[in-house]
Amino acid sequence: MDVQAYLAERARLVDEALERVLVPSEAVPARLHTAMRHLVFPGGKRIRPAFAFAAAEAVGAPPERALPAATAVELVHTYSLIHDDLPCMDDDDERRGRPTVHVAFGESTAVLAGDALLALAFEVLASERREPARALLALRALAEAAGPRRLVGGQLDDLASEPERATTEAILGVHRRKTAALIEAALVGGACLAGADAGALERLSRFGARIGVAFQIADDLLDGERDEPCSLVARLGESAARERAKALLAEALDELEPFGGSADPLRELARFAVGRDR
Amino acid sequence: MDVQAYLAERARLVDEALERVLVPSEAVPARLHTAMRHLVFPGGKRIRPAFAFAAAEAVGAPPERALPAATAVELVHTYSLIHDDLPCMDDDDERRGRPTVHVAFGESTAVLAGDALLALAFEVLASERREPARALLALRALAEAAGPRRLVGGQLDDLASEPERATTEAILGVHRRKTAALIEAALVGGACLAGADAGALERLSRFGARIGVAFQIADDLLDGERDEPCSLVARLGESAARERAKALLAEALDELEPFGGSADPLRELARFAVGRDR
Repeated sequence: MDVQAYLAERARLVDEALERVLVPSEAVPARLHTAMRHLVFPGGKRIRPAFAFAAAEAVGAPPERALPAATAVELVHTYSLIHDDLPCMDDDDERRGRPTVHVAFGESTAVLAGDALLALAFEVLASERREPARALLALRALAEAAGPRRLVGGQLDDLASEPERATTEAILGVHRRKTAALIEAALVGGACLAGADAGALERLSRFGARIGVAFQIADDLLDGERDEPCSLVARLGESAARERAKALLAEALDELEPFGGSADPLRELARFAVGRDR
Repeated sequence: MDVQAYLAERARLVDEALERVLVPSEAVPARLHTAMRHLVFPGGKRIRPAFAFAAAEAVGAPPERALPAATAVELVHTYSLIHDDLPCMDDDDERRGRPTVHVAFGESTAVLAGDALLALAFEVLASERREPARALLALRALAEAAGPRRLVGGQLDDLASEPERATTEAILGVHRRKTAALIEAALVGGACLAGADAGALERLSRFGARIGVAFQIADDLLDGERDEPCSLVARLGESAARERAKALLAEALDELEPFGGSADPLRELARFAVGRDR
C-alpha cells in the first residue's frame, strides 16, 4: 500500500467536508471566518482524519461513514493548535511556514477563532442523523478527548513542566492526554459511526493510546526536541526514545490482529506515523 | 408564582449537576479544575438553566428532564464570560465582586479553563442516553448557538463596534447572537429533551430570540450602560430602550399562548428577566 497516496486521497475527502462546514470567508464577520480558515487550509497531512477513515475500513465499512468524525477531529486539532500558539501559551509566530493566527489576525480573533472551531466540531458530529445513538457515542468520545481530563489538562501540564523535574511518567502522561487522546477519539469515532461493536472499539482505543504516544515521540525525534521540557527525547536520549516508540508500535499492532486484512490501511498509517524519523 | 423562589429551587438543581460533572478541585491538574470552578460557583442567578427547566414544564414534562441542557448551557455561558474577560478581549479584572479567572489564575489557565468548560458542556449533553435523537438535536442547537454564526460572531462584532458607527440594527444583531442565541438554545434544548414537538420548539425558539434581546436591554438599563458602543440604551436613550424591551416581551409572550397554564413559570421568568430594571 502506498501510504502517501492513501493520505492524499483521504485528505481530499476531509478537505471537501471542511470546506462545506466552515462558513465562507466573505460572510460577516469576515475577519472571524477568514481567521478560522487560516490554519485549516492548506492544513497538514490530515493524519487524524486518516485514522478515522482507516478505523471505519478496519471494521468493514466504506471510509465515508467516518467523515463526520474525521472532520470534527480535524477541527478540534486546529482549534488546539491556534490556542497553543497564543502569546500566553507557547507564543509561536509561525506554524507550517506561515504566520500563526494571532500574528495574522490579532490575539482576540485567534482566541475566538479557536473557540468557534471547537463549537463547530460538535455541530458537525451532532448533524449526523443516520444513527443518533452512534453519533452521540462518537461525540462523547471527542468531547472527553477535548476536555479537562485529556487535551486541556495535558496542555496545562505541558506548559507547567520543567526540564529538570519532568519524569518519564509525567511526560508520558502529557503525551497520552495532549496527543494520543485525540487520535483515540478519531479512531473510536470513525469506527463507531461505521458500526463497530464494543470489542472493536476497545481494541481501537488501546491501539490509539499507544500509537498516539509513539507518534508524539516520533514528532519530537523529527524536530530534534532535545531542549523541550516535555520530550522523551530530552529525557531518555534519542536511541532510548526511538526504542520506546518501536515497542509502542508493536503493542499497538498486536491490538489489530483480530481485524485481519481490513486493518491494513490502519497498520500502514501506524507505521508511517511512527516511522517518520527514518 | 414567586419567581425568586422558583429561581432558587431550579438553581439548586443545576448546581448539584454542575458539582457532579465538574472534576473535583483536588484532582490533577488542580490549577485547571480550580480555575474551571472559580466562576461556576457560586455563580449568578442561573437564569439560562431556569429557562431550560421552564421550557420542559411548558411542554408538560417534569423539569428534571431538561437537566442536561440546563447544565450544558450554564457551562457554555461560564466559558464565554471567562474568555470575554480576558486581557485581549474586554480586559475585566472583576466579575460578580471577585477577581476574574485570568486575574486569579493567569491568562493561559483562563483560556484553558474556558476551553475545557466548552468541551465539558458537550460531554454532558452527549452523556444523555435516554433518547439519543433528542439529545443530538439539543446538542446541535447548543453547538450552533456557541459557534461562529452566533455567540462567537456576536462577540467579535461586539469587540469591533464603535459608538458613533453602531446602528440600531447592528446592536440588535450583536444582542441576538451574543445573548439571545444561548437563551434560545436553553429553551429549545430543555423542551427537546422533554419531548416537545417541532411546533413547540419553533415557538420556544421565537420566544427566546425576543426575550434574549429584551433581557440584554434590561441588563444594559440596570448597568446604566450609556457609554458602551453596543448598547441600545446608549443608541436610543433609556426611555426608548425600555419601550423596545417591553414590546419584545409582549411579542415573546404571544408565542406562549398555545401552551396554556403549563407555561406560567416561563411567563414569570420572562417578566422577571426583562423587568429587572424597575
